[in-house]
Order: sequence, then structure tokens, then C-alpha cells
Amino acid sequence: MHVSSTKVRRLQRVFRQDGRALIVAMDHGSYMNVLPQAADPGRILDDVREAGADAVLTTLGIATTYTDRLGDMGLILRLDGSGSMLDQGSTFEQRYTIEDGLRVGADAVAAMGFPGEGRGETLHNLGRIASQCTAWNMPLLAEMMPGGFNPSLHTPENITLASRIGVELGADIIKTTYTGDVESFKALTAGVFAPVVVLGGNRKGELVDLLTMVHDSLQGGASGVAVGRNVWQHENAGGVVRALARIIHDGATVAQAAKELGSR
Amino acid sequence: MHVSSTKVRRLQRVFRQDGRALIVAMDHGSYMNVLPQAADPGRILDDVREAGADAVLTTLGIATTYTDRLGDMGLILRLDGSGSMLDQGSTFEQRYTIEDGLRVGADAVAAMGFPGEGRGETLHNLGRIASQCTAWNMPLLAEMMPGGFNPSLHTPENITLASRIGVELGADIIKTTYTGDVESFKALTAGVFAPVVVLGGNRKGELVDLLTMVHDSLQGGASGVAVGRNVWQHENAGGVVRALARIIHDGATVAQAAKELGSR
Amino acid sequence: MHVSSTKVRRLQRVFRQDGRALIVAMDHGSYMNVLPQAADPGRILDDVREAGADAVLTTLGIATTYTDRLGDMGLILRLDGSGSMLDQGSTFEQRYTIEDGLRVGADAVAAMGFPGEGRGETLHNLGRIASQCTAWNMPLLAEMMPGGFNPSLHTPENITLASRIGVELGADIIKTTYTGDVESFKALTAGVFAPVVVLGGNRKGELVDLLTMVHDSLQGGASGVAVGRNVWQHENAGGVVRALARIIHDGATVAQAAKELGSR
Amino acid sequence: MHVSSTKVRRLQRVFRQDGRALIVAMDHGSYMNVLPQAADPGRILDDVREAGADAVLTTLGIATTYTDRLGDMGLILRLDGSGSMLDQGSTFEQRYTIEDGLRVGADAVAAMGFPGEGRGETLHNLGRIASQCTAWNMPLLAEMMPGGFNPSLHTPENITLASRIGVELGADIIKTTYTGDVESFKALTAGVFAPVVVLGGNRKGELVDLLTMVHDSLQGGASGVAVGRNVWQHENAGGVVRALARIIHDGATVAQAAKELGSR
Amino acid sequence: MHVSSTKVRRLQRVFRQDGRALIVAMDHGSYMNVLPQAADPGRILDDVREAGADAVLTTLGIATTYTDRLGDMGLILRLDGSGSMLDQGSTFEQRYTIEDGLRVGADAVAAMGFPGEGRGETLHNLGRIASQCTAWNMPLLAEMMPGGFNPSLHTPENITLASRIGVELGADIIKTTYTGDVESFKALTAGVFAPVVVLGGNRKGELVDLLTMVHDSLQGGASGVAVGRNVWQHENAGGVVRALARIIHDGATVAQAAKELGSR
Repeated sequence: MHVSSTKVRRLQRVFRQDGRALIVAMDHGSYMNVLPQAADPGRILDDVREAGADAVLTTLGIATTYTDRLGDMGLILRLDGSGSMLDQGSTFEQRYTIEDGLRVGADAVAAMGFPGEGRGETLHNLGRIASQCTAWNMPLLAEMMPGGFNPSLHTPENITLASRIGVELGADIIKTTYTGDVESFKALTAGVFAPVVVLGGNRKGELVDLLTMVHDSLQGGASGVAVGRNVWQHENAGGVVRALARIIHDGATVAQAAKELGSR
Repeated sequence: MHVSSTKVRRLQRVFRQDGRALIVAMDHGSYMNVLPQAADPGRILDDVREAGADAVLTTLGIATTYTDRLGDMGLILRLDGSGSMLDQGSTFEQRYTIEDGLRVGADAVAAMGFPGEGRGETLHNLGRIASQCTAWNMPLLAEMMPGGFNPSLHTPENITLASRIGVELGADIIKTTYTGDVESFKALTAGVFAPVVVLGGNRKGELVDLLTMVHDSLQGGASGVAVGRNVWQHENAGGVVRALARIIHDGATVAQAAKELGSR
Repeated sequence: MHVSSTKVRRLQRVFRQDGRALIVAMDHGSYMNVLPQAADPGRILDDVREAGADAVLTTLGIATTYTDRLGDMGLILRLDGSGSMLDQGSTFEQRYTIEDGLRVGADAVAAMGFPGEGRGETLHNLGRIASQCTAWNMPLLAEMMPGGFNPSLHTPENITLASRIGVELGADIIKTTYTGDVESFKALTAGVFAPVVVLGGNRKGELVDLLTMVHDSLQGGASGVAVGRNVWQHENAGGVVRALARIIHDGATVAQAAKELGSR
Repeated sequence: MHVSSTKVRRLQRVFRQDGRALIVAMDHGSYMNVLPQAADPGRILDDVREAGADAVLTTLGIATTYTDRLGDMGLILRLDGSGSMLDQGSTFEQRYTIEDGLRVGADAVAAMGFPGEGRGETLHNLGRIASQCTAWNMPLLAEMMPGGFNPSLHTPENITLASRIGVELGADIIKTTYTGDVESFKALTAGVFAPVVVLGGNRKGELVDLLTMVHDSLQGGASGVAVGRNVWQHENAGGVVRALARIIHDGATVAQAAKELGSR
Repeated sequence: MHVSSTKVRRLQRVFRQDGRALIVAMDHGSYMNVLPQAADPGRILDDVREAGADAVLTTLGIATTYTDRLGDMGLILRLDGSGSMLDQGSTFEQRYTIEDGLRVGADAVAAMGFPGEGRGETLHNLGRIASQCTAWNMPLLAEMMPGGFNPSLHTPENITLASRIGVELGADIIKTTYTGDVESFKALTAGVFAPVVVLGGNRKGELVDLLTMVHDSLQGGASGVAVGRNVWQHENAGGVVRALARIIHDGATVAQAAKELGSR
């Protein structure tokens, strides 16, 4: 990573020495229903930490309430937000500051970037947050999704365009959706000058589908994952994290990794 | 409560050692008619203080004009507001600052959170106020109502979603409406990692209805109440507060508590 | 008045020891035609000062240009404004700061509060100005008019509601329109925990009409007046002020006061 | 002039000891085509300076690029702007700060005030700039035009109303359009408690028309002119300035002044 | 250049002693697809630097990630942005600050100015950025395009108007499109009191077309170029830069310069 030395120091709390990161996303509760599975964020944090998660992407509320349960995991604080699942079409706005991140001990901050009709404000937000991050040497994770959560714009070309826009704006980590095949994802990571982590999205029907996606994305140059619902909506969140860790950090095959769910 | 130690210090002015709070809400005059019952806020403050109220949620005007009448009750200052009952559809905006709260000796600040169509700005407000509270270690009470005062969205599921959103955004206390039954409220409090106080809303026809609602909500895990019109619109505000205190702090039954209104 | 001691110190430049104030409003020139009567604000200031006015409510321009003519009268600086009589429907916005007030030696600042459709921004302005006033211990005069200058909402109930909203938001003085009868104005002042001054509005056809309104409002609990056009549009502005002063500070009858116009 | 002593000190760079000012306006290039006549602002500055111009009203670009060519002329920096002649209906906004004025050595700053439908924002801008000027003791020139550049609202009554609004908002100099006759302009200057300078507007067909307008406005109480296109679009800009100076500072007749154009 | 001495010092990193600059624009990735040609910005920077580029106009992301590859080339940081090629009609807003420029070692900053319908906000942005640049003595490159990227307004008259507006607003360098012929460009540069660099725009079919345009613009008074896609979309970016350098700095003919592409 070609970033300033203070950013590198902070990024070492997110990425291991192998340059890869297993990030658990727990920021959904700020806009959607996460119950009953995430009723106790502390238990989930305990589980994923013990299972080997490298960092957690979460909200100010969880970051301050469960600071002791975060332990030595890296902390990525989401700074922006829009309405909730009850609101249609709300804009995204920056709510929290880099200083908040520093106060709660965050190692990076996160914000959305949705190139595509009707979400132009997210790119302004991202740029401005990147400006603030420059002032504080705080790493920025940009969640780049063409057209936002609307899948109709999620073509490999658009996902690649969005990811490149993210690094041009100043992001240090790109979180995006997998393009669907190794070749197109190789083109994406070749054209994005920062680590790329793939998101999990809706919970997959079978764990093997998630693991295959992660395995393929790593083949395509990904530096890890930021998975949320596929972890904490699962009855064995620790097992899912262990399986992901086997693939991400140990070079396991999907079949090898899948055994982790049954391993205890 | 898992919050920073300075916030805990301040919250001890709102919650007693039993972890419960009897909050009297007197912030209605900033948007609706409170006359003639609330013509003299000083008298109401005297009455509810003597009757055992733990804290008052009120406006800058009352907080600064009647500072001597607040005595040792906790003070929760409302920071936001919209138009009045004469205005349709005004947005909510932050008007006062955490520094105002510090100047007037507030122990917490309060703002609305209305997930649901057309009120997306309240979640931005809440997040930004939570950010400011983080900087000052000021506790934040979020009044979470799905769809705002419009009852059509007030289902148990939506009330629970709204309450969880509140804590994810960084609130330290949730004020919300009772879900209607103990079981659904247990699910709510199990999924909300901060104390929940129930609001009273429109004045109930019979005091026993209010007391039953409070009793049930405590069974469902509530940490107390924030009741306004049912207190100060009553001819015996002190008696209502004594009855509430019996239930909240003494574990009285509804029948036992109801006797307080006739006790003097 | 239950306000902070520094505010009290400043308010003593507006209210005499009898708790009453005769305020001359000269802020009309920022939006409407005041010519030819107000061509020379210095002459008007000389006249009303000699005649016994206690304070002047005016604009930055007059406050800074005629600072020597203000003499020992109290100065209330208007902070907000909208378009002019040539503009329909402009919003009100805060233009000047409390610091401006301090720079020009103001003893209080003023802003509009128009609860009622389409003017929700004025309540946000008022709240924010009240916040700033809290930081500087600067008294705030709120001009509360339901629906703004549109008289269709000027019922006693709405005027009372608007006035109470003003003090809840943090105003230290309420300027509002007379409700029309003593009884309803008594109810208003009983429910408004700050001094209330009545405005004059359009010039009355006969001086006795103005004096009667002022006399009745004092019976109803008013603490004085803020009269503009009825003073400076009159050929004998000093005489009108003397007549008002007789009623406000000397307890004169309308008939006694009316003699002042012919007294020299 | 009844202004603070520091403002007076600065205004002495704009107005001569006779209380009159010959201001050359060169701020047109920020929104309209000024070529080919104004291709070389340095040459124009040299010409008008040598011819006796007292001050220049211009843009940040000219003020910083040609600082040496301004010599001892007063400098009035325009702070606001809207779109260009290619844009319909853009709003006016403040772009530059009083601090910019101080940095570039300005003796006053300028902004538009357009009372009349659709330009309400200009009055907010003016008020806010006046507030900032109060903090820095920087004189403010307000260009007051009813309805903006739309001549349909340019009646003597409206021009007078607009000019008075300007001084009420806190302006120290009013620049406005001539009302068309001496009597109405006398009424204007009698009701405006600050020096008034008349603008030139579109280039007049004959110089004598400009000189007559200036002569008459001085009879009506004007304190000088702010003329742009009639100067720099003329093949003999220096001659026009000399003619204006004869009328403004020497009390020359139109006929006497007109000889300046042929004088060298 | 008539600018403040600190600006001059910084501009010497963009313009050589001959007063001309060969700027490579690499800011496209923030809004459009730049792949696969610009997948590796470091390689392009190496190539153009070795070939003699004087400065690079680029984004925060490239400026901070490839700081070592910029070497001794001047750095111009783009401060503004709008949506992406996936968004229609997004506004331009300032995202980054002059302080960001100082932090990353920029020698100038850049922003768009699009006089013409619907883009009025860009002129406000430019003015405000020029204000900030004045405070820091940071040179400002304004990219002036009448009507933005819409070519229908790209007449010589409009391009000249836009360029002049740029310098009036305070820009120190104008980047604009070639007017199409030497005579009209001479009129443009004669009326624009700052160095003008011509942009390349879409990739030309033949290199000779680019070189001819550059050669002619220099004849018309241009001070250099800011070329992007015609450089980095070419299979021999270094060769294109060498050819441009021959024309810009060595006075070569188009034919002489074109040989550079075959020279190694």
C-alpha cells in the first residue's frame, strides 16, 4: 500500500502481515432489522473475535457500548448514513467525524460511494471525508456500489468503474461486490490501486456459496472480505468466521474451509 | 450501561441506583397548547419534585427560567424542534447545542428519531448530535417513533426497529412508545443495548390505564418512564408521580400504586 | 424575571424599575417604505428620547449610524430579516450575530417567530438565536405572530400559543399583538413566563384607539409596548410617546394620557 | 458620514475631502463580455488614474493582478456574484470574504441588493456581509436595484425604497440608478442616511447624456458616481473621467465638462 | 504573471523559465472509465516524467498513493467533483481544501468553471476557492468551459468569455478548449490576464491533429497544454509527451515533433 506512514500504522490493525483482512460488518442495525440474531452484539463480537476476525466495521453505538468486547480486533467506524428501511430515497449524509473515530479508537472509517443516478451526494461525501482523513492520517474504507443497493447497475464494468472512482477520491480500502467471475475481478483489482475486500450481501442459502465467492475473489486479487449477515445471521457465526479465515489466511480450499463449521 | 465513565456520572442524575428513572416530560409547550394546565411550570416542578420525580425533560426556556425549581432533579434538555401544531410537515432541526446543555447544567440531551417516510432528517440529526455528545461525554436520549407521531406505523416490529436504530446511532437512553404487550416489549428491550423508557402520550382516560401500561412495560424490561401530559394535565400531578414511583421504584402493583392519588 | 444575572443587568436598560418598558420600534425600513416620515431617524430618536422612550428596537444601519442619538435609551438589535415588500414569500433568516449586538452596544436582540403554515423556519431561527444568546447572556425579544403578518390566524388562542412557544424556545421578552380583550390577554400573560410587550401595528386612525389598546393590555398583564408606526408616522411623535409613558409608567387613564398630545 | 472611526479612515480612500467620489466600475468581466475594450485592464487603470478617478470597484482577479496599477486609487472589492450572461436566473452568493478585502488592501467591499421578486437572497447576503463588515470596520457599498437588472421595477419609488433598505441593512455607501429627475432624487438622498453614488449602466449614446445625468444627480444630493461601461467602453476613457471629475469635484457645467474630451 | 510572490514561487513548479507548461491531466478516473490504459498510474507517471512533462493535474487518490512517482514534476490537485458518468446532472461541489493541497505538496489547485445554463454553482465554487487560495497564496487553475462538456456552447466567443470570467474570479491559470483558429485564440489570450493552457479533450484519431492544435494554440498565445487522454490512452504515452515538449519548449514544427513517436 502506498499510503502515508501513519495510515500504514493504523491499517496494520485491519490487515494482517499477509496483507489480507477478514472484516465482520456489523453496521446494519442503523437502518434495517437485525433481530433476533443480533440482539446481543457482545456475544457476536466474542464469537467472531475468538474465531479469528481481524476487524469489525460497525456503528458509533456498538463501538462505544461494546468497546471491551472488541478486544484487539481492528475497528472501522461508519461515518455516514441515510434513512432506514422505512424511508424511501433518503440521501446519505456524513453524521460522524474523524475526531469521533479517534475518540473511540477506530483504526479506519467508512462511508458509502454510490455512483449512479440519484446518489451523486455520496461521492461528494466520500471526497470530503477523504479530505478530513488526509488531515488526520485516518484510513478510509469506501463501500463502492454502482447505483447503490439497486442490483440493475451491478455489472462487472460498473463495479470496476465504481471501485476505481473510490480510490481516485482518496479511499485506502475498497469494499465492493464480487463481479461474478475471476477474470473480471482480476481486471478490477488490477485497476484499483488499493486493497479490495468483497462484501457478502444477503445471506447465501448455502455456506459453500459464500466460501466459493470468497475463494474466487481472492484468486481475482481481493485482499479479503467484509461479511456481515452471512456471519451474524448464521447459527454458528464463529464457524463461518473460522471457515473464512482458513481460506483468506491459510490458503485453504472451499472444501477444507467448509469443515470448520462442523469442527466444534 | 456500557458507556464512558463521564457519561455514567451524568446518567446517575437521571437513573437511580436501582437503574430506573421516572422522567417527567415538560417539552410540549414548544409546539402545542399546554394551557391552562401548564400555565405555571414552577408549580408543576415543585409538585413533581416533591412527589419523587427523578428527572425532567424540558426546553431551554423552562430550564433557564426555573433553574431553582428543578432542585436536585436530573435535567434533560431537548435540542431539536420542528414547527408548531399550526405548521404541517415542518422538518426537525437541531436548534441547541451540547454546550447549551453544559451551560444550563443538563445531565443529558434529547432529540427525536422518526424512521419512516418523510422524516429521514431526524436520523441525520440524531447521528450528528450523537457525534457531538461523544465529544463532550454528554448522554443522549433518543425519542424513537416509527413514522413520527403518525400511529399507522406504530407496530411492535417498527417500534423495535426504531429503538434499535436509536442505540446504533449512539443514543444512551431510548424513549419510545409501549408495544402493547409484555412479550413484544421483552423482545424490544432484549434487542436494544441501552435503557428504554416508555412515553405516556395522550392523556389516558383512566389513571389505571397509565399505571398498567407502565407496570407491563417494566415487566417487559423497561427502565422507567418519560411521562408528560398524563402528569401535568392531571389535577393531581404529584399524585400521579407518586403512583408511578411506587410501581417503578418500589415494585408496587397497579392497585397499590393507584391508592397514591387518594393518599393526600 | 427569572433569568441569569447578566441578562438581568442588560434588561435593566430596557425595563424600568417598575418592570415596564416603552419601546419604540424603528426597524421597518429594512423591508417597507418609511418615507417621508422617517427620512431623518436622528430627529425621531431625539424626539422619542426626550419624550421618555425607554428603548429602541432597530436595525444595524440605524444602530451604527445614529449611535450618538440613542443616548441612554436601551438598544434592541433585530438579527433576522426576509425580503422586502417587493418580494412575496421570502424566508426569514438570521443575518446578524449576537457579537454584532455586543459590538454596537445592544442590550437585547430581536427575531421573529411565526408559528403557522409556511413559516416553520422562523422557529428554527429563534431557537438557534436563543442558543447563541445563552452563550453570551444576551436577552432575546421574540416577536411572536401566528401565521406571520397574515391576520387570519390572529385569534386569541393562536396568539397565546405563539407567545408561549416563544418563551419555551428561550426568549426573555415576548412582543406580540393584543388579543382584543382584557380577559384573554390575562390568560396569555398568565401562561407566558416572561414580560410581554404589545405591538402597535398599522397606524390607528385615532390616538385614543392606540392608548386604549395599551391601557387594556396593561390591565391584562402586559409589561409595556413596542410601538413603531403609530409613533414615527405621527406628526407629533414626542407627544405620542409622552402619552404612552403616562399610561405605562404613571398609571394614567386614557383621557389623561391623551392630553399629552396637546400639551406643547 | 456617521460611521465608526475606522470606517471613516478607510472611506477617506474613496471619498475626497469634498465628500464626493468618482468611482470607476471594472467588475463586469466576472459575468459579461468586456472585450475587446477591456482586454488590458492595466491600461484602463493607468488612464483613469491619471485622469483623476478616486477609486475602482473591481474583482479579486483584477485587484490582485494589477495591484501596482491601482496606485493610490481607492479599491472596492466585489464580494458576491451570480452566474454569467450565459446563465438565466442564477442566485447571487457571497464568494469572497472581508479578510480577502483586507489581504488585497481594499478600502471597502461591495455586494448587490435586489429587493423584488425572486432575489430575496441578495438581502440576506447584504445583511450577512454587513455583519462581517461590522466585525472588521470595513465599509460596505451596496448596489441597490429594485428587481435587479430588470428595469420594469425601476420606478423612483422603488429605487428610493431599495436605497433606504440598503442603509438599514448596514451599508455605508449606496450605489443605485438615477431616478430620472432632480426632485425625486432629492427625496431619495434625503431619506438615505449614507452617501449615494449613481451608476452609469449601459453605455449612453452621447457623452453629454451621461454628464447631464451625473450633473442632475449631484443637484439631487448624490455624492458621486460609479461608472463603468461609459468609461472603459469609450475610446477615450481618460477623457470621460476628466469630464466627470470636472462636474463632480469642480462644479463644472455639462458644457464645460464636455470640453475635456477634446482637450488632449 | 502578475501574482503575489509566493504564488510565483509555487508556479515555478508548473511553468518552466520559458513561461510554458506541459501538463498531463490524470484526473479522469474520478468520474469516468480509464481502464485498461490507466490501470497503473505509476507507470504512466514514470513514462511522462521521463519524457519531460512539467506537471500533473490529478486527484487526491493518485497524488497520495503515487507521491514518489511524481518526482520533481509539479502537482496540481483537483479540488472539485460532481457525480460520475453514471449520474446525469449532478452538481459540482468543492470536496478538498487548500490545506489538503498543502499537505500533499501541491503547487497549484484546480476547479471547474462552467458558465452556461445549469452550472451556475461552478462559478460560486471557483470564487470561493479563489478566496481560499488568496489566504494561502496557492495558485488556482480554472478549467473554463462554456456550458460544461456540452459542445453546443463551445463557440470562440463563449470560450473567450468563459476564460476571462475565470481570471476575473481570481484564477492564476486558465485551462480551456482551443477556439479552432489562431486569430480567435489570439483575441482570447489578449483578453485573459493569466497564462492559458489548452486541453486535449477526447482522443484525437491522429497524433498530428493533436500536435497541430497545440502548435496553433501556441501561435495564438497559449502558454502550454493540459493533455490527458491523448497521452495516457496512447500506447506510447512517453512519445506523445516528447512530441508535445518539442513543440512547447523547443519551438519545433509539427512535422519535427511527430518524429518523436518513432524515435525510440
